[in-house]
Amino acid sequence: METDMETPLLPSSASDASEPPPRHQGGTVIAIIGSGDFSRSLAIRLVASGFRVVVGSRDPNRVAAGLFPDGVKLRSHREAVSSAERVVFAAVYPEHYSTLLGMREQLVGKVLVDVSNATEMNSERSNAEKLAELFPESRVVKGFNVISAWALQAGAHDGSKQVLICSDCSVSKSSVVQLARRLGFSPVDLGGLCSSRDIEEAPLLLFPSWGAPILATFLLFLFFYGYNFLRRILLPYLDHGENNFYQLPLVAVNQTLPAVALITLALVYLPGLLAAVLQLSRGTKYKRFPGWLDFWLCRRKHLGLLSFLCAALHAVYSMCLTLRRAAGYTLLNAAYHQVKAGVENSWVEKMVWRSDLYLSCGILGFGVLSLLAVTSLPSVGNALNWREFTFVQSGLGYAALTLSVMHTLFFGWDFTFSAEAYPYYLPPVYLLALILPCVVLVGRILLALPCLAFRLAKIRRGWESARHRPPNNRKEADPPRNFGDV
Amino acid sequence: METDMETPLLPSSASDASEPPPRHQGGTVIAIIGSGDFSRSLAIRLVASGFRVVVGSRDPNRVAAGLFPDGVKLRSHREAVSSAERVVFAAVYPEHYSTLLGMREQLVGKVLVDVSNATEMNSERSNAEKLAELFPESRVVKGFNVISAWALQAGAHDGSKQVLICSDCSVSKSSVVQLARRLGFSPVDLGGLCSSRDIEEAPLLLFPSWGAPILATFLLFLFFYGYNFLRRILLPYLDHGENNFYQLPLVAVNQTLPAVALITLALVYLPGLLAAVLQLSRGTKYKRFPGWLDFWLCRRKHLGLLSFLCAALHAVYSMCLTLRRAAGYTLLNAAYHQVKAGVENSWVEKMVWRSDLYLSCGILGFGVLSLLAVTSLPSVGNALNWREFTFVQSGLGYAALTLSVMHTLFFGWDFTFSAEAYPYYLPPVYLLALILPCVVLVGRILLALPCLAFRLAKIRRGWESARHRPPNNRKEADPPRNFGDV
Amino acid sequence: METDMETPLLPSSASDASEPPPRHQGGTVIAIIGSGDFSRSLAIRLVASGFRVVVGSRDPNRVAAGLFPDGVKLRSHREAVSSAERVVFAAVYPEHYSTLLGMREQLVGKVLVDVSNATEMNSERSNAEKLAELFPESRVVKGFNVISAWALQAGAHDGSKQVLICSDCSVSKSSVVQLARRLGFSPVDLGGLCSSRDIEEAPLLLFPSWGAPILATFLLFLFFYGYNFLRRILLPYLDHGENNFYQLPLVAVNQTLPAVALITLALVYLPGLLAAVLQLSRGTKYKRFPGWLDFWLCRRKHLGLLSFLCAALHAVYSMCLTLRRAAGYTLLNAAYHQVKAGVENSWVEKMVWRSDLYLSCGILGFGVLSLLAVTSLPSVGNALNWREFTFVQSGLGYAALTLSVMHTLFFGWDFTFSAEAYPYYLPPVYLLALILPCVVLVGRILLALPCLAFRLAKIRRGWESARHRPPNNRKEADPPRNFGDV
Repeated sequence: METDMETPLLPSSASDASEPPPRHQGGTVIAIIGSGDFSRSLAIRLVASGFRVVVGSRDPNRVAAGLFPDGVKLRSHREAVSSAERVVFAAVYPEHYSTLLGMREQLVGKVLVDVSNATEMNSERSNAEKLAELFPESRVVKGFNVISAWALQAGAHDGSKQVLICSDCSVSKSSVVQLARRLGFSPVDLGGLCSSRDIEEAPLLLFPSWGAPILATFLLFLFFYGYNFLRRILLPYLDHGENNFYQLPLVAVNQTLPAVALITLALVYLPGLLAAVLQLSRGTKYKRFPGWLDFWLCRRKHLGLLSFLCAALHAVYSMCLTLRRAAGYTLLNAAYHQVKAGVENSWVEKMVWRSDLYLSCGILGFGVLSLLAVTSLPSVGNALNWREFTFVQSGLGYAALTLSVMHTLFFGWDFTFSAEAYPYYLPPVYLLALILPCVVLVGRILLALPCLAFRLAKIRRGWESARHRPPNNRKEADPPRNFGDV
Repeated sequence: METDMETPLLPSSASDASEPPPRHQGGTVIAIIGSGDFSRSLAIRLVASGFRVVVGSRDPNRVAAGLFPDGVKLRSHREAVSSAERVVFAAVYPEHYSTLLGMREQLVGKVLVDVSNATEMNSERSNAEKLAELFPESRVVKGFNVISAWALQAGAHDGSKQVLICSDCSVSKSSVVQLARRLGFSPVDLGGLCSSRDIEEAPLLLFPSWGAPILATFLLFLFFYGYNFLRRILLPYLDHGENNFYQLPLVAVNQTLPAVALITLALVYLPGLLAAVLQLSRGTKYKRFPGWLDFWLCRRKHLGLLSFLCAALHAVYSMCLTLRRAAGYTLLNAAYHQVKAGVENSWVEKMVWRSDLYLSCGILGFGVLSLLAVTSLPSVGNALNWREFTFVQSGLGYAALTLSVMHTLFFGWDFTFSAEAYPYYLPPVYLLALILPCVVLVGRILLALPCLAFRLAKIRRGWESARHRPPNNRKEADPPRNFGDV
Repeated sequence: METDMETPLLPSSASDASEPPPRHQGGTVIAIIGSGDFSRSLAIRLVASGFRVVVGSRDPNRVAAGLFPDGVKLRSHREAVSSAERVVFAAVYPEHYSTLLGMREQLVGKVLVDVSNATEMNSERSNAEKLAELFPESRVVKGFNVISAWALQAGAHDGSKQVLICSDCSVSKSSVVQLARRLGFSPVDLGGLCSSRDIEEAPLLLFPSWGAPILATFLLFLFFYGYNFLRRILLPYLDHGENNFYQLPLVAVNQTLPAVALITLALVYLPGLLAAVLQLSRGTKYKRFPGWLDFWLCRRKHLGLLSFLCAALHAVYSMCLTLRRAAGYTLLNAAYHQVKAGVENSWVEKMVWRSDLYLSCGILGFGVLSLLAVTSLPSVGNALNWREFTFVQSGLGYAALTLSVMHTLFFGWDFTFSAEAYPYYLPPVYLLALILPCVVLVGRILLALPCLAFRLAKIRRGWESARHRPPNNRKEADPPRNFGDV
């Protein structure tokens, strides 16, 4: 193999091992077309990493030279491109690409890096594809657009930033991959230029996988808040003029949040159960899940974090309850009545146990949920192996769910069975919130029964029930590795 | 140098700099033996990164083609291996390796990547070593097993995942290292194939370094909880029928947690003191520490995080104390008695100062401990240099320990000296918990005395006392860099 | 291209594709001069990654061989250097560099890696530059000094650690860059040897960018604490002997912290507004900001985290308020007075609404601020694209500021307009703390007015007002990418 795809960026001489190295011999010359912010930051980073940079501007004399680091040459577009050894960055807006056509000849055989972002989603063709069409004899590589100008300048000391790269010319792509690595980034090769639209649109996305989970959580909040408003505030007011409106900002919110947290946590574990049931009933794991289930399975992490957020807010709200002026008034009035009634000791052992038990379960459940949230930090999660990840997400997750359900049950105590808990025949919020989590826990216990658990394990190791086996009844199936069971 | 170890994965032509690049020329052909989950995920990732993939299956017609991405060819095992340019992944269970023997000829000279996990710890030989024995003329490389199928599919946008790689053939290893990097992973070269057992067993480990610290913390919790149960609940009940059992779920736990947190924090700093004392008494740092001390030194981070966990739980439990029904009853009864006794103002200045002081110290100590916990997150800790790390871990750590001890001392106030604090001659839990932290703090102060500190610094820069020096009394020791003092 | 710069570390034979690979052929031989801690750790890591290591010591027989891993050869300095194929690490203190001069001949053409740290800031020349002067015929590369001995040993499984590297010989630098990568580190190329002083001084820095923000926060704290002390404690005591000194440890701190948190948060967003005003008044973005504004813009993240720290402490202090003995006494005395006055119901609707509203706003504001703090973790922030980062930092940040201002306004309610709020003509702390945040919010609203917002957007896309345009009134300015608006 004569050509070296990873290293053509730096010139080298055959005799370099014997001669003393010249001081500051300078690196490869790289050209940047355009003299805007991105060009400036890229030039700073390239110079810092030992490259020589020529910036092409329409009017090189007008650009304040002080904006670029020492050693960067400001030239006309044409001169800049001509002096580039191999790599040319096109740092101009895509709508001006056509103005570069005059340099087609200078760009023949050169690597032309398109760093533009998309301006709208779902455009017909990507900027990089248009550029490749304009310069068919250049090697267009898409990349560096997901990096901000700020990260370009500061990057060296600031962790690893991914640079997504694609191109139809793998040799040129390798050059740019290596260049990105030398600048301290983590290049990721995404294949051919057909991926460039995804790369260009990446900076336009705003938390794409959070949309559905946030919407679901928000709707749950709205429902329970409205239900609570009806049951505890509006109906009592209409019925007998009881003024509970002061509960709107804090008390009602704090009754809604735990319900949302509990149901959202159950929604994290429900799709896993559904997937297991589906595999059991189908008798194989080689059939795809329906799309909605795949989608749901991919959103479990987000649902879990939203559940944690609601639980954390509930914890803080609850710990602030005694700070409220209302709590003080209630206590003072109770003291007044106790004194008037002459009750020396108002202690009720049952209520003491109840409150201590539900607080304990709540605190422990929240503690376990916090551990789960910490392991969902990328740097912590990356340090876990598969077994540890499963232990945390599945083992600790069900522990948190169980403790939360116990927290709610102890909170409800035996009042659930008194008629007073159902004013206007409406059950309390915590009862409604318990339904789904209990279904999930019961389902999990059923799936742990030996008969089902054994069959499921077999299926997940690749076994298939008779109706799925081919006629020749092959015994030695390719045994796939079992990574499907999160 | 004719051969290029980093780049043989991609074909290249000598004339590539002048001809226009063909569209979608396609990358190197890579084969995967086996069509299970791992094979599918690997194929998805390889295709996304611009490789061409041929999957080998026993019965290629039976595999649902829809499971694999477009462009992946499904062939027989033999055809797949034959069409691979260089790299072949063996994605079948190790117990089926022998069934691949028929393809020995096709595999000669090829790089055979073993992606299997161990099924049990401490097996005699690794799967990769067995594979290398079966195919002596292939170049077996171990790797990719620590990556889950999920990470393979999602990885491009999901941070850096380490891929541990080893092989006896360094050329082949370099190919696989480069391949892993092109797929967006962070390959780590672990040397020869003798490391493969460690790599295969990595996925079986379940928090290996957390075992001892968790056990120690748990035993401390058990001891103090039992002691508290005896002193505050069981003995008073047996003695005079006092019913304190309601304290079991919350109050007793909240008295136990701070003791455990305090002692665990002291255990973080004790081994460092012991190491210093050992170096001082030996007069050299060139003798190894005993095994238990090395082990203990390596578990300080885990002990510190467990201490933080206990402290955080203690903080939350404490902030929930006034939410308890018992707290309400106690206050109401106190109000009743104050009214009956006709005391207009029950304010006791000393108790007010005591509670405000111990709360302040506790909050500040917990705040400092939280900063410590945050810097133990990998992504934060990695951004610190050595001096910053030492400042945080040692400086802030001792600050947290001192504040926690003050928190406990203010809590104890002067009640420690009254006989009532010793029912049944048992000292209160917080007194027991103070012993070790005070020993550590005094030890740290002693080591900071100039005479000892100076001698220790000399030893840590490489100086040795006379009895360790060789007969010829060498004056100019190789001065080693001082990195031993954490 | 004959020479391969990335791969000369490993020997390879032209025929390696056809012959079976020899077992344990061993990697390249690398020499380390010096046998101290760093040398030992480096040797361990090199051996683990498949290299062969020869350690040079003045007195190889004296070094306890057990300290080095198996396979490492201990030799004299001269022998070690001679046996190195290409790379030699100089792991001795810089003051001993001159003692290596005898090996000048053996080191000709070799890559000499300087791993030393600076001992003081702002030294005239770096150690690496001195070494390069002593060995003009060797290729000196600076690197590996920012890595601790501990990270060297443990690194393989411990995330990505950056290794800063520079050299005047780009071929040798590439070798060391590749070596660092093979050891599992993330090398960052910082250019020529003139950068070596920065690299050597990196380990001496102690949170360099935190100094000014911490100082500002501390001064704010001192000012408000002193003001509060004067207004609530000292003057009432001098005036009418009121003893409020018990408020010093907790209550006064908890009144100071929210003021500091609020002003610090405003200081995060003020420089962005100033920058916008400056761009608007200048009519161009191509003039540099004054130095102090650049400095301030770079410290926003730190100010924001300090604001979060103060807010978190304020939250914890507040949630502990009802735990205080003083709170108990106050409540008991109020109960006594209520009973004596015969007031059956002391409920004041207005006060209930006020306390619930300011608690709600405070909790929500703190929640939003926590999300901001989480995204400033490197591993989380790195996963965000530019649009998401802007949404979080700017959108959520202003939401947190607005909620905090509302928290303070509801806390103040209408008492601000009563004369009692101004004892000794001193306004309460929360009023003072509101000035700057309100200015920032009003400024932000003004800048969102269409006339200003549109002009600013134009400027940030590269438009310049007439007085900045060159005489020939160029219409088609190089359109730079808009990355300046954080």
